[in-house]
Amino acid sequence: MSGEWEPTLETVAIVGTGMMGTSVALALRSLDVRTYLLDCDHDAAMAAESRGAGIAGRPPETVDLAVLAVPPRSIAAVLAQEQAHGLARAYTDVGSVKAEPLAEAEAIGCDLTTYVGGHPIAGSERSGPMAASAKLFRDKIWVLTPQAETEADAVRAAAELVTLCGARLIIMAHAEHDQAIARSSHVPHLVASVLAASIHGVDETVLRLCGAGIRDTTRIAAGDSMLWTDILQANATEIAKVLSEVAADLDAASRSLSSGSVELTELLRRGNAGRATLMAAQNG
Amino acid sequence: MSGEWEPTLETVAIVGTGMMGTSVALALRSLDVRTYLLDCDHDAAMAAESRGAGIAGRPPETVDLAVLAVPPRSIAAVLAQEQAHGLARAYTDVGSVKAEPLAEAEAIGCDLTTYVGGHPIAGSERSGPMAASAKLFRDKIWVLTPQAETEADAVRAAAELVTLCGARLIIMAHAEHDQAIARSSHVPHLVASVLAASIHGVDETVLRLCGAGIRDTTRIAAGDSMLWTDILQANATEIAKVLSEVAADLDAASRSLSSGSVELTELLRRGNAGRATLMAAQNG
Repeated sequence: MSGEWEPTLETVAIVGTGMMGTSVALALRSLDVRTYLLDCDHDAAMAAESRGAGIAGRPPETVDLAVLAVPPRSIAAVLAQEQAHGLARAYTDVGSVKAEPLAEAEAIGCDLTTYVGGHPIAGSERSGPMAASAKLFRDKIWVLTPQAETEADAVRAAAELVTLCGARLIIMAHAEHDQAIARSSHVPHLVASVLAASIHGVDETVLRLCGAGIRDTTRIAAGDSMLWTDILQANATEIAKVLSEVAADLDAASRSLSSGSVELTELLRRGNAGRATLMAAQNG
Repeated sequence: MSGEWEPTLETVAIVGTGMMGTSVALALRSLDVRTYLLDCDHDAAMAAESRGAGIAGRPPETVDLAVLAVPPRSIAAVLAQEQAHGLARAYTDVGSVKAEPLAEAEAIGCDLTTYVGGHPIAGSERSGPMAASAKLFRDKIWVLTPQAETEADAVRAAAELVTLCGARLIIMAHAEHDQAIARSSHVPHLVASVLAASIHGVDETVLRLCGAGIRDTTRIAAGDSMLWTDILQANATEIAKVLSEVAADLDAASRSLSSGSVELTELLRRGNAGRATLMAAQNG
């Protein structure tokens, strides 16, 4: 019986017990991995503990893996701090932006050999430990972005985390991830927010005429505004590129509304095609 | 036993057996109202008949009510034509734009005393008779837009249709409806289409990073592009007003992405508030 098939993750520290971090902890607890819950807001760690996500507080000794479930712009600082404390043998995160945190970590002298960036493509418009679910990552994509200098043991620990959470692992480069996620998630979030903002403060008549369309279109606009400010600003350059395309299309649509040109139909057809591609990819 | 509580709609003609028209017919058939299915594409009428929506073909005599389930820009012409044929004693429609069809109907000399505009706030991104459902309108809002000149019998027939379909009746003025629906439905549709178009032709990497957020945000972008061209152009003026707000917000967001200003958080908070208002209204 070779040891290579045995689970190697026995102890994991979750730093940041919001919806994402607590969901990771719950998934691990369901497989009896020992988890420690750290949060600068100790009440949040206690709330996660009350959900059965593990033990609130620092582990008695160095753990196998620390999962940094903090906003993108806090990742580098938390990594530096926890590496200084010797919290874990390996570190990963669950942030939706990868390049900027890595550059910051490098700039402030983190040990990048034990850190591998991560991003599960799963979430919720709800936030906090009470919105967490052990099944959040089941069958979802989970990106890891190791670099040449990342130690094999760190990659292995992060990859095992992905597997234990029931997700599907994809390896990507940081820049490639950030470019793609700007289009697949960050711009949709911003657009949904703008749309939801357009019904803020309107009169009752408009609200009565809101159906399933605008309800689905604005669902993600309920996401935490401070967290999303952080995410969007951390990926500003890539988002701006896609936003300029979106703005140009909206502008063209607006002009062709009254001109009766074929441009509007053409845009709606591209929308049909994009939607069909998405559904085919998700069902395939 | 007074006759005023008896159902008065015994025969209804559905003109246009797409998803909406066939859904109306199915709802009526479930209550044993006799329905006749007319469509310029006779195959569509036959398909609706095969779903149990009624009898494909013109009724042998004048019916109680005709429901015009055709695109907004065809309503006036179809109304004129069917009034000339003496199809029904009263006419309504299910189009999502009300002012322009009415103005057109007036311009081409329709009898407006027997016509009452209608718009059920229900739909699907799918189209055609096979996508129809007898339950489509259950508990949904259904707007009627009678005018001073509309005969009471026509209003009564249309209101009974709303009740028979299980929907909740709201009376509004044409202009008020069109202004509100631009914000609650037409602009969201256009924005969802632009977003879906932004992932048309992108590489596999982007598609793999698409999660539930963009899936929900773009659902309605699957709607029929010719029908939606018609709808959006028929309500161009009201849509353009809302679109200019949306464009200004997107532009401000784009600028504040890199500047680190509070404008971005402010926009996301307005999005949170708009979303919360919407959910409160829909659950209330």
